[in-house]
Amino acid sequence: MISVAILGFGVVGSGCAEVLTQNKDLIRAACGSDVEIKYILDLRDFPDSPFAKSVVHDFNIIVNDPEVSLVAEMMGGSHPAYEFTKACLQAGKSVVTSNKEVVANFGAELLALAEQNGVSYLFEASVGGGIPVLRSIYVDLASNRIGEVNGILNGTTNYILTSMKESGTSFDDALRAAQRLGYAEANPAADVEGLDAARKVAILCGLCFGKLIAPADIHTEGITAISGKDVSDAAQMGYAIKLIGHADCKDGKITALVSPRMVPMSNPLSGISGVFNGVLLNGNMVGDVMFYGPGAGKLPTASAVVADIIDIASGKGGTVKKPHFVNATADDLADFAAYSCARYFRFENSLSEVNAVLGERAGHILCEDGYVSVITAVPMSENEVAELATRLKVCSAMRVL
Amino acid sequence: MISVAILGFGVVGSGCAEVLTQNKDLIRAACGSDVEIKYILDLRDFPDSPFAKSVVHDFNIIVNDPEVSLVAEMMGGSHPAYEFTKACLQAGKSVVTSNKEVVANFGAELLALAEQNGVSYLFEASVGGGIPVLRSIYVDLASNRIGEVNGILNGTTNYILTSMKESGTSFDDALRAAQRLGYAEANPAADVEGLDAARKVAILCGLCFGKLIAPADIHTEGITAISGKDVSDAAQMGYAIKLIGHADCKDGKITALVSPRMVPMSNPLSGISGVFNGVLLNGNMVGDVMFYGPGAGKLPTASAVVADIIDIASGKGGTVKKPHFVNATADDLADFAAYSCARYFRFENSLSEVNAVLGERAGHILCEDGYVSVITAVPMSENEVAELATRLKVCSAMRVL
Repeated sequence: MISVAILGFGVVGSGCAEVLTQNKDLIRAACGSDVEIKYILDLRDFPDSPFAKSVVHDFNIIVNDPEVSLVAEMMGGSHPAYEFTKACLQAGKSVVTSNKEVVANFGAELLALAEQNGVSYLFEASVGGGIPVLRSIYVDLASNRIGEVNGILNGTTNYILTSMKESGTSFDDALRAAQRLGYAEANPAADVEGLDAARKVAILCGLCFGKLIAPADIHTEGITAISGKDVSDAAQMGYAIKLIGHADCKDGKITALVSPRMVPMSNPLSGISGVFNGVLLNGNMVGDVMFYGPGAGKLPTASAVVADIIDIASGKGGTVKKPHFVNATADDLADFAAYSCARYFRFENSLSEVNAVLGERAGHILCEDGYVSVITAVPMSENEVAELATRLKVCSAMRVL
Repeated sequence: MISVAILGFGVVGSGCAEVLTQNKDLIRAACGSDVEIKYILDLRDFPDSPFAKSVVHDFNIIVNDPEVSLVAEMMGGSHPAYEFTKACLQAGKSVVTSNKEVVANFGAELLALAEQNGVSYLFEASVGGGIPVLRSIYVDLASNRIGEVNGILNGTTNYILTSMKESGTSFDDALRAAQRLGYAEANPAADVEGLDAARKVAILCGLCFGKLIAPADIHTEGITAISGKDVSDAAQMGYAIKLIGHADCKDGKITALVSPRMVPMSNPLSGISGVFNGVLLNGNMVGDVMFYGPGAGKLPTASAVVADIIDIASGKGGTVKKPHFVNATADDLADFAAYSCARYFRFENSLSEVNAVLGERAGHILCEDGYVSVITAVPMSENEVAELATRLKVCSAMRVL
């Protein structure tokens, strides 16, 4: 019998209890013994829940109980989730979590602490919800040097961008519809401004390149400025607009950013619609591999948390494959101004003015409604883009994947 | 230092040596020690290879060397690969393989033998080449009951179907082009008749439902009868034709088949083009998850073989997560005649004749060139399809996903 404690009985926490209960026989078979929920820590009581008598309000009961060998933290937010995680690891308890904020900010420190205490800190659910992407990186793709990762990492923004494309609605209307359907929160800033995706990029950098980048060091642009004209230009030119978390590592220098991108239809990320997520990785041996599935939601996210529980519980003290990374230093980061990729621009200039400045760099050109829209034929750096804006009237600009 | 032996120095075997050499530092870091290729078993000599002095022709040298703890079998074909695998497991050596034929035919027996001898038998590369799908099922999705799996499991046929769609070529021309490009073998039967995909379905049934189905028990149809008219009908009706390996488990009864299908554009498998593979799984907690990537090729397949090597080597005698299944019995199999799904038909009848017979069952109807093409609105069983063929002139019929 393995006794676990759940910290936080919100959406994911209660989902975790549901997965452990509903698939009890499967989980017993996988672990070789039962997994029992001994405690649920929450500020609230849940008198009508089948788990009512497991609810406690004092974290010390959990951390001081030697029977609890595994803690599932699903509180959300940095504090006190970080402090509780630290205390559990120091007490020799393994911790699994869906809390991307804690992993993105403190993951390197917590992994080192787990290592020192001979326990595990796993966070499969923190990126891509139910999609098995993180363990695939550190186990299945361990024979590969990962060069680049691109992902649709936020379901809310993908839902909004999909609605804008499919029904021609504005950003504001699509956001309101997403809020009505429960796909966007009342305060949608963390999603629509790209902060949630940036945390996931931080974690992906840790697993792909061994260096956790502070989310604040990740250039982050959201989707609030995307217009209907951008969306229709994209469709006409054979692209879909997606909020893409990107990271690459060249010569040991990492570039990481979150921004809307024009994704060509030939890229499998272009077809990922609605609240689904996808992560496309390039390994030096395997080439391109993509993982697709529900990036959020109660049961999908809980499914990944429980996979981590099973991974540890079935280890029976043996070797659990563990993620490993350290904090990035300034020296690990590439100069963002030099970041280069193909670009989309919409100019309020004449075609001849555009051609005079862009010359051979212009690729696909669309002239419509008095605008000249261009997908460049060659990559342009951030510096070159800034310079271009001094010579032409750029009314929209976007990176291309 | 971990000493491995490679059995078979063909495409995948030499790729495996290349991955182990090129990413030596990564692999050392993941395993905690070097992985050395001590022997390569092949009938041929490779005097110009950097591995020339490791080549041996006598399997007994390998099986009798106690220093070799891990054997990578990449010989292809059932014999003597099966006998060699058995001998290695009995000698207390773990075995990893890309050989789907051996796994599909003897996997349950070999897993039991590995278990008895306290070693591992892993075969990530046997399905989906470099795509990390099998370990994801038995580790990441261990908290889920898998209800259904659908996959594009053969790159050759997907390349042919993609060419037929994109350039309107016939099956024969597309096959010849694939042969010229090295995507299809001189004798393409195993690919185009669906046998390769059936072996992979057999293995997926083992991992998803715990029962290995003999490939001979899997209803298998290839793509040789697909016509240009089928392809254009599909495109006009909003579908793509794909060779789909399907398996589902309902009330403990498994249905497994390989056949071409009309895949709606809303299904992410519809967008998988060329030689790429994709596997879409449905878990009772996570919902739909898809894995996409190169389903074959030297380095992608070798990447998966080396992932298995790392998984075992880094275990250091600890617990390696292991796949587990037994052979299916007749009692595990559903009655195929009752298998029900939506259908595509092209009839050489008038619309009124078709409507008189199909009635409410007709969904999307396309009348063109004297044919009536229909996608049914409701699922129809194999029995109902057979009955329909006695009442209407069916000139093409296909399952719909």
